[in-house]
Amino acid sequence: MMRTNYCGALSTDQIDQTITLCGWVDRRRDHGGVIFIDLRDREGIVQVVFDPDTEEHFERADTVRGEYVIQVTGRVRARAAATVNADMATGEIEVLGKELVILNKSETPPFQLDTHTEVGEDVRLKYRFLDLRRNDIQDRLRLRSDITSSIRRFLDGQGFLDIETPILTRETPEGARDYLVPSRTHEGKFFALPQSPQLFKQLLMVSGMDRYYQIARCFRDEDLRADRQPEFTQIDIEASFVDQDDIMSITEEMVRGLFKEVLDVDLPELPRMTYEESVRRFGIDRPDLRIPLELIDIKDLLTEVEFKVFSGPANDPKGRIAAVKVPGGNDKLTRKQIDAYTKFVGIYGAKGLAYIKVNDKDDLENGLQSPIVKFLPNEARQGILERVGAENGDLIFFGADKTKIVNESLAALRVKLGEDLDLIESEWAPVWVVDFPMFEEDGKGGLTPLHHPFTAPACSAEELKAAPENALSVAYDMVLNGTELGGGSIRIHDGDMQQTVFEVLGIGEEEQREKFGFLLDALKFGAPPHGGLAFGLDRLVMLMTGAKSIRDVIAFPKTQSAGCMMTDAPGAVSTHHLNELNIRLRKKEKKEPSENT
Amino acid sequence: MMRTNYCGALSTDQIDQTITLCGWVDRRRDHGGVIFIDLRDREGIVQVVFDPDTEEHFERADTVRGEYVIQVTGRVRARAAATVNADMATGEIEVLGKELVILNKSETPPFQLDTHTEVGEDVRLKYRFLDLRRNDIQDRLRLRSDITSSIRRFLDGQGFLDIETPILTRETPEGARDYLVPSRTHEGKFFALPQSPQLFKQLLMVSGMDRYYQIARCFRDEDLRADRQPEFTQIDIEASFVDQDDIMSITEEMVRGLFKEVLDVDLPELPRMTYEESVRRFGIDRPDLRIPLELIDIKDLLTEVEFKVFSGPANDPKGRIAAVKVPGGNDKLTRKQIDAYTKFVGIYGAKGLAYIKVNDKDDLENGLQSPIVKFLPNEARQGILERVGAENGDLIFFGADKTKIVNESLAALRVKLGEDLDLIESEWAPVWVVDFPMFEEDGKGGLTPLHHPFTAPACSAEELKAAPENALSVAYDMVLNGTELGGGSIRIHDGDMQQTVFEVLGIGEEEQREKFGFLLDALKFGAPPHGGLAFGLDRLVMLMTGAKSIRDVIAFPKTQSAGCMMTDAPGAVSTHHLNELNIRLRKKEKKEPSENT
Repeated sequence: MMRTNYCGALSTDQIDQTITLCGWVDRRRDHGGVIFIDLRDREGIVQVVFDPDTEEHFERADTVRGEYVIQVTGRVRARAAATVNADMATGEIEVLGKELVILNKSETPPFQLDTHTEVGEDVRLKYRFLDLRRNDIQDRLRLRSDITSSIRRFLDGQGFLDIETPILTRETPEGARDYLVPSRTHEGKFFALPQSPQLFKQLLMVSGMDRYYQIARCFRDEDLRADRQPEFTQIDIEASFVDQDDIMSITEEMVRGLFKEVLDVDLPELPRMTYEESVRRFGIDRPDLRIPLELIDIKDLLTEVEFKVFSGPANDPKGRIAAVKVPGGNDKLTRKQIDAYTKFVGIYGAKGLAYIKVNDKDDLENGLQSPIVKFLPNEARQGILERVGAENGDLIFFGADKTKIVNESLAALRVKLGEDLDLIESEWAPVWVVDFPMFEEDGKGGLTPLHHPFTAPACSAEELKAAPENALSVAYDMVLNGTELGGGSIRIHDGDMQQTVFEVLGIGEEEQREKFGFLLDALKFGAPPHGGLAFGLDRLVMLMTGAKSIRDVIAFPKTQSAGCMMTDAPGAVSTHHLNELNIRLRKKEKKEPSENT
Repeated sequence: MMRTNYCGALSTDQIDQTITLCGWVDRRRDHGGVIFIDLRDREGIVQVVFDPDTEEHFERADTVRGEYVIQVTGRVRARAAATVNADMATGEIEVLGKELVILNKSETPPFQLDTHTEVGEDVRLKYRFLDLRRNDIQDRLRLRSDITSSIRRFLDGQGFLDIETPILTRETPEGARDYLVPSRTHEGKFFALPQSPQLFKQLLMVSGMDRYYQIARCFRDEDLRADRQPEFTQIDIEASFVDQDDIMSITEEMVRGLFKEVLDVDLPELPRMTYEESVRRFGIDRPDLRIPLELIDIKDLLTEVEFKVFSGPANDPKGRIAAVKVPGGNDKLTRKQIDAYTKFVGIYGAKGLAYIKVNDKDDLENGLQSPIVKFLPNEARQGILERVGAENGDLIFFGADKTKIVNESLAALRVKLGEDLDLIESEWAPVWVVDFPMFEEDGKGGLTPLHHPFTAPACSAEELKAAPENALSVAYDMVLNGTELGGGSIRIHDGDMQQTVFEVLGIGEEEQREKFGFLLDALKFGAPPHGGLAFGLDRLVMLMTGAKSIRDVIAFPKTQSAGCMMTDAPGAVSTHHLNELNIRLRKKEKKEPSENT
């Protein structure tokens, strides 16, 4: 082996040992006739000292520059008390270098690792192999590896089989846009890259595999947001002869074990909350329970007021009026901040942000400071104060609009308030959200599945047909700190029920056969009851490492325009290759009479 | 949980326990007024008995049919001595059923699991979810899961980090045809699916990740042979600050540990053989060392003979003449079999298959039975007998042609002889093949890399430029029973050397920048010495499970035409979707004047 030890793993245990290290020159200093090299490898940094006694090697040490790759042999020694560096893991020791071999030189890098924030992300993505040398991103990728390793060990131990499903498959019904792959051998046909292994894992249950998992790459050709990538990774789990409690129990054990093993965090047992409760209290189905603010319904108090902003939604069956009380908010929030929040909720479609500052709750006439209070009769004022349990010094925000707008704006506002006012009570607040509706309105007068069309309803086929909009599903999401870690459901294992769901969704028999014929076939020949769950690995790693961007937990991420700055992918392709695939580029405007086939 | 035990895991330990099972009806028999159900789950089969005492459940048991999914509660009891079934893992016990719940019915399957060989593979691939219910394929997929689990544990323990690399990337230089993915956001550009993560793993070394592995999906759009699939899986390993011995030692430990752990097989320590020796003795660079037959060069004995079949290759610098001696082959091989072998070597381009049956080695005139011996002078006869160490009763085959044809035909012949004559001496015969040439002729007067252009040469850049055809590389293959399990190399970490190799391959500077610019950049900024190895997981699993086809170790394989019989992938795609991707189908003949965009 070219080395005996890792730089960052040295300690006082190695004092007086002669060791060999390999690594990168993090910094070289010349001080008092002696050369100091901070040598870096995956495990950390150690200080190597060359003095003029080792003439040849001293001279060579003098020539090395940042990011040179060198091999150093030397003796570990304790640092003098005055030079111990408490900020450095190896700060109690240093290596007295005897030999130095330059394994590779380096040109001056396009950016310094310790000043990476001064260059744009574009430069760092172009030179990703340099950016990946930074400790924080190395640590995150290492933690990611530890996380998958821990999860695999757990699932292996529970009898789950790691089974690979195809990447080259057919268009999937998840709803997002598929990436396509033209087939060379089947002219005019295309593979699709999977948005999830959903149908394959169900088929594995039909085939009796009993317990399956896969850490699976998935693909979505969607416009990217900050936390999205064209390819992402899913911890995909499915089991047979189970109910909702079985899947929740085993995956909860997995996640709590993971946090203990990897972060030494004791995650609390997960409470359960219905979808209805979650949306009512937090405006959203992935509540951040670290923040002790809630939405409180006051619609019933305002049906009779003349103030249109309130009376409109109060008398609209699709309207909602909710209050969010910020205890002690009077002193904490300036007018300017409140104006900023008004703008903030505007992102979610809210037309304004009413508020009341409670100076003296017993003085309904003059004790309430608010631009809207003058429009409210005392009875309504009193009702609101009582409903929200206001105390003097509290500030109350209001949302009054269509339910969707109120929910989205106040859900976002409570998280923002929680962060801005430092209200976060605990580091980790996981929760199960259950009893999801089967469907939601698709905006075109029809219904669309809230999860996917293979989710089992919590009612009979007859009830489903009679009132699909009221049907609940046997679906469950694991939520942590306001992020959906994973979602799953018990699946439909009965062919008739599956066809009923397709019918409710307006998928006719022909389309059923064409798109899902193989699933319907599979359900005919002895499909067991089964269900599962899929976790988003990238988001899980983001949460566990505190990363701000999904690009910080992926070795070679794509940009927002779904390109790779480093390799320049996607790239141009020869006409010959396109011909083989029976496709050609589409010209937006036909400028030339002849086409370049 | 819906069950207390797996069917196949029951034993006499559970006698008198009341248990609940879930599974598939493998068989139902009515015998002496009692109903016997063989109930099957992932772990195996157990016999359940319903007698008329449990009236309601007995009647229900009478209605079940093959592949029904049922839940049975009952009591485990010992079978009477006369009815113990020694062929069945659970044959000492049975379950006296008390309750039976039908969880799902099944129509009559398109084929019976135990008569699957009677239907074509097409039917089994169409109903793959049924074919996967067979024990042998379930066992193979389970072993596959065990194999990856064992490998991951080993590599995790050795400090290798599991790091994911992109599936959506750019065209790769492995030489085979890439699968392409049109980009929606980058008009007219395409992603390519990776043929291997080669460049990414090298970049991870440049970034200081030190030890990397990934069980990675790879893609090749090639015409398929029996042991190829469009997507396949690679155990991809790379490490920094290592030499060839380090990589070989760690991967050998991994594979031997794997065989011990998963199959309880003590694989012998791996001998090393140079490429030159392997091709000389076995005609191939992946020798099946289980078979004690070798190619013996006799070219030098035949330069002077008049027999053109021999004298031609004997005097051709690119010719080879080799003998394969089959000890005792005289009695074992009939004329008809020899004719069949003659046809067999014809597949590899051999124009014939000369042989000598050695009846009496001391009688050069009449002791040799052969169609060709009459063309050989006694001196040549004697020389051959001595060279191959012939004994009476031996049969000697000859190959005489261009070296490539002799090697390929005799390499195949020795394996066929080994199998036909039952000459296989050991179950497992692994070997390292080392010292590969850097390049081979590309058939167009140029050179092509034997591995890939990032393989480090075993010589200096000057020597490489002077005589590239003689250069050896620091590459190594692990071979088991004639199959290449994996191949690897030390990579080039010096930018100048990398450019020299590109130049030797005729890749000009512009093309270097365009295709490999990011690699050349990476080599500028402190690339460490590094190397690795990649194992073909599918082939490894085939070998370890004794599977005949790669389709038997993949849950959802593609057919030879790269299609999926079950999902009907690849499929047609809407014009709208193609428009979004800026492509359209290419029509071979323009029959219509207007095009359907």
